[in-house]
Amino acid sequence: MSKLVIVGTVAFDAIETPFGKTDKILGGAATYIGLSASNFDVDSAAVSVVGGDFPQKYLDLLSNRNVNTDGIEIVKEGKTFFWSGKYHNDMNSRDTLATELNVLEHFNPVVPDAYKDADVVMLGNLHPMVQQGVLDQMNKKPKLAILDTMNFWMDIALDDLHAVIKNVDVITINDEEARQLTGEYSLVVAARKIHEMGPKYVVIKKGEHGALLFNNGHMFYAPALPLEEVFDPTGAGDTFAGGFAGYLAKTEDYSFENMKNAVIYGSTLASFCVEKFGTERMQNLSKGEIDHRLKDFKRLTQFNIELS
Amino acid sequence: MSKLVIVGTVAFDAIETPFGKTDKILGGAATYIGLSASNFDVDSAAVSVVGGDFPQKYLDLLSNRNVNTDGIEIVKEGKTFFWSGKYHNDMNSRDTLATELNVLEHFNPVVPDAYKDADVVMLGNLHPMVQQGVLDQMNKKPKLAILDTMNFWMDIALDDLHAVIKNVDVITINDEEARQLTGEYSLVVAARKIHEMGPKYVVIKKGEHGALLFNNGHMFYAPALPLEEVFDPTGAGDTFAGGFAGYLAKTEDYSFENMKNAVIYGSTLASFCVEKFGTERMQNLSKGEIDHRLKDFKRLTQFNIELS
Repeated sequence: MSKLVIVGTVAFDAIETPFGKTDKILGGAATYIGLSASNFDVDSAAVSVVGGDFPQKYLDLLSNRNVNTDGIEIVKEGKTFFWSGKYHNDMNSRDTLATELNVLEHFNPVVPDAYKDADVVMLGNLHPMVQQGVLDQMNKKPKLAILDTMNFWMDIALDDLHAVIKNVDVITINDEEARQLTGEYSLVVAARKIHEMGPKYVVIKKGEHGALLFNNGHMFYAPALPLEEVFDPTGAGDTFAGGFAGYLAKTEDYSFENMKNAVIYGSTLASFCVEKFGTERMQNLSKGEIDHRLKDFKRLTQFNIELS
Repeated sequence: MSKLVIVGTVAFDAIETPFGKTDKILGGAATYIGLSASNFDVDSAAVSVVGGDFPQKYLDLLSNRNVNTDGIEIVKEGKTFFWSGKYHNDMNSRDTLATELNVLEHFNPVVPDAYKDADVVMLGNLHPMVQQGVLDQMNKKPKLAILDTMNFWMDIALDDLHAVIKNVDVITINDEEARQLTGEYSLVVAARKIHEMGPKYVVIKKGEHGALLFNNGHMFYAPALPLEEVFDPTGAGDTFAGGFAGYLAKTEDYSFENMKNAVIYGSTLASFCVEKFGTERMQNLSKGEIDHRLKDFKRLTQFNIELS
């Protein structure tokens, strides 16, 4: 069984949307990535840090979905990372109400020995030096290193970000961030410039407008499934990344053709994530539900024009 | 050979984009629709009005692409409709600098007798009463009536618009206009509400984000081809509509499955339109170029996940 190392936040989120609001609930990039990847038959491990206030039941929830939690450090006297945000009516923009780094401030990730030979490493959104620190601990170069990041790191740690970007095979980034990173409005041109920074594969996430995969002039596009109602977009990008990484780890085929399928799986899983608050929908997703929605994706995108 | 009646403006445009600006050049919804539909083997006729200032060479240009111009009235003492606009750097928004209705102000469309039995009618963006006037002149109910419109008519002629929408099979509309027409943010919900207004098929155009086709709970999505550079977006929506209508008229198959192909053809043709100023790119497009780009669309969207 392929091993997948996931680094990212494990956190408390408090979310407000036009449909309601939550108290502190389970959140964090590594949480969403892990839950999403758990839908594939892979041996994954989360590397993160939480405080003494973090409930054991949340760790159990990950373990029960076959996400190893040995690499989640518990700082007994510390408090768990907390993020709070409020979505606007269009669900495409949000205000951050609070960000309390807490134990994340002095986080030194430790990859469990049993996972230092993992084939796939998914570097979730965190300080680029933490992401590089995980890569540095691997016994051998992973077959696939995937990096997710955000504009925040471009603002405060651009050199560190460039350093780690150089060392990964795939970057996942949203459209605005791709533009910020490259200074190019056209996503085609932006993707080419990001290729030149290192990654052979560039995934540009466009939220409700889907995702684009680029590889040396080749392109693939997966729409987001149009939904009657987006209940809570929190974690959709991480869920996409988790599905993408999980599918590739499971199939052990890192070709562009198979990455197309990985993008479709990522989009499929993200379409579930947004249906309920936080991780709720991702906690007990069945294979039948996923297969059913993949069929929806096929119907949504496949056509039959015969060309000579 | 199937007949296609096209009503819409034939006009002068003056366009400014970050790449440059034009003097008065050939424009208008019927022009773009006609040029786009001319890539299919159909007998199409444009119904419109121009002034005495309109050059014969522009009419010849349409005739030479097999668009019948008998239904384009020439008001010798009048001036041709003129629109001028300036695109912002992101190419997704524009300011209208001038709109001179001129001969359009008192336009009474006349469908040539030879086209009153056309199977397909494409009602380009014009006052809804003009669109209804064209439908009223048909000898028999067309097999497919397609309507394009814009927010301007929702603002000043909403009742007339509702009256003609009731009588068409397909509406093409952009995302913001769909939201304005229905008061719904979700495009899935908006499409359902537009179904209830009459049209069995709803096409929502999302510009660089592609187009969605809805039919009673079924959905299909065609992306826009990601381009290095969008040179001039003017006419892209009409070119889409012309490709959609032309393909359906040619194939005489008005099923949802075939409409998927029509949406792909529309997107393919629109991707050419934006590569040069105005109608320039559409004036001498070859079948080989179109087929080549259709292959690009296949590669962009088709994947191979086998489901049990």
